[in-house]
Amino acid sequence: MTTQDKLKQLGITLPPAGKPAAAFVMAAQAGNLLFVSGHIARKDGKPWVGQLGKNMTTSEGKTAAHSIALDLMATLEDALGNLDRVKRIVKALCLVNSTTDFTEQHLVANGCSELLVAVFGERGAHARSAFGVAQLPMGACVEIELVVEV
Amino acid sequence: MTTQDKLKQLGITLPPAGKPAAAFVMAAQAGNLLFVSGHIARKDGKPWVGQLGKNMTTSEGKTAAHSIALDLMATLEDALGNLDRVKRIVKALCLVNSTTDFTEQHLVANGCSELLVAVFGERGAHARSAFGVAQLPMGACVEIELVVEV
Amino acid sequence: MTTQDKLKQLGITLPPAGKPAAAFVMAAQAGNLLFVSGHIARKDGKPWVGQLGKNMTTSEGKTAAHSIALDLMATLEDALGNLDRVKRIVKALCLVNSTTDFTEQHLVANGCSELLVAVFGERGAHARSAFGVAQLPMGACVEIELVVEV
Repeated sequence: MTTQDKLKQLGITLPPAGKPAAAFVMAAQAGNLLFVSGHIARKDGKPWVGQLGKNMTTSEGKTAAHSIALDLMATLEDALGNLDRVKRIVKALCLVNSTTDFTEQHLVANGCSELLVAVFGERGAHARSAFGVAQLPMGACVEIELVVEV
Repeated sequence: MTTQDKLKQLGITLPPAGKPAAAFVMAAQAGNLLFVSGHIARKDGKPWVGQLGKNMTTSEGKTAAHSIALDLMATLEDALGNLDRVKRIVKALCLVNSTTDFTEQHLVANGCSELLVAVFGERGAHARSAFGVAQLPMGACVEIELVVEV
Repeated sequence: MTTQDKLKQLGITLPPAGKPAAAFVMAAQAGNLLFVSGHIARKDGKPWVGQLGKNMTTSEGKTAAHSIALDLMATLEDALGNLDRVKRIVKALCLVNSTTDFTEQHLVANGCSELLVAVFGERGAHARSAFGVAQLPMGACVEIELVVEV
């Protein structure tokens, strides 16, 4: 089954690929590794503003991380032409805009990780770090970057 | 001398390899690079909870980072079968759960870096970034991830 | 035009390469990838202390990020012998010492990104993540690490 077929089976339509908000590119390849820029969560086309532990629940954060996974796949499709060229999702770095007492960054990050595994299967099993940051660009609640083997 | 012999010489027994706390794997390889997930500090089998600048000293944080290095080596041994397959510890990312006025993240991180150099010698000389995060999964005091050449 | 000529054309003189402040190396190579340690901002040879949103403006932070780019290039020249050996700046990780309400980390990071693009042209177009950290080693205002293809 192609990755595109898998997306259809899961009822997933990818959003349009994003554009960088500043002086960088969305993804840069070196050899067989594609380094994907940090993608901030978006809602209705705008930065999804919020902070875990202050005005967002873990469940809402997980939904935000899920939406970032969609944006990341859109970037991958744009960069590679075809998601079947993803050999392995290797590494995710998940930054969660957190108060100093919010400690469920790993559960928020699951919103992204679980979708990647659902879409890519074994090719989606990735190493990961998740942690709480003081703040994110434009006040976004979550930001995630990837390293992908192609 | 094998790496195992070196561990014995240093009087080090590795703990059992950890299991992921969520939807990811402890390490993922792409080509000759092994990306190791962020490992949080543990004490008596549970997350080592604390924040530098609030209720932990730099020295205690360094001890926590040292214990993470043991867990990271256990993961490497589990993933590679044999620590001799480590060609180079390439990069460490050291996240220190910090108040806004704690500025010794580099000294905390040394607890991990110094042990890696002691065990792997020249193969352990790695690039590194260390910084203070707002909070970590399960309230852990330190989290460290690695990139390893195999 | 060599990269050295481009630096001259831009009126840029690189500072001396830095030395690690702790138990790590400034850059470690694995295959064709050079992982460069996080470099903190420096002013007059000392850590450039400050926090965005508290006692530094976005414009000052951008200047600090620009100065780090100079230090990063000095490290690259020291590690590679010649900046022409840089095939591609692949990835930048930009850590901005931020209050919990400062949300312009991406604009601060541009101080580094724009200089890399000015010097390396297409070879300088990199993926990037920028975020706000609770604190940095020695109180520095900005820290940046790179992944470079050689």
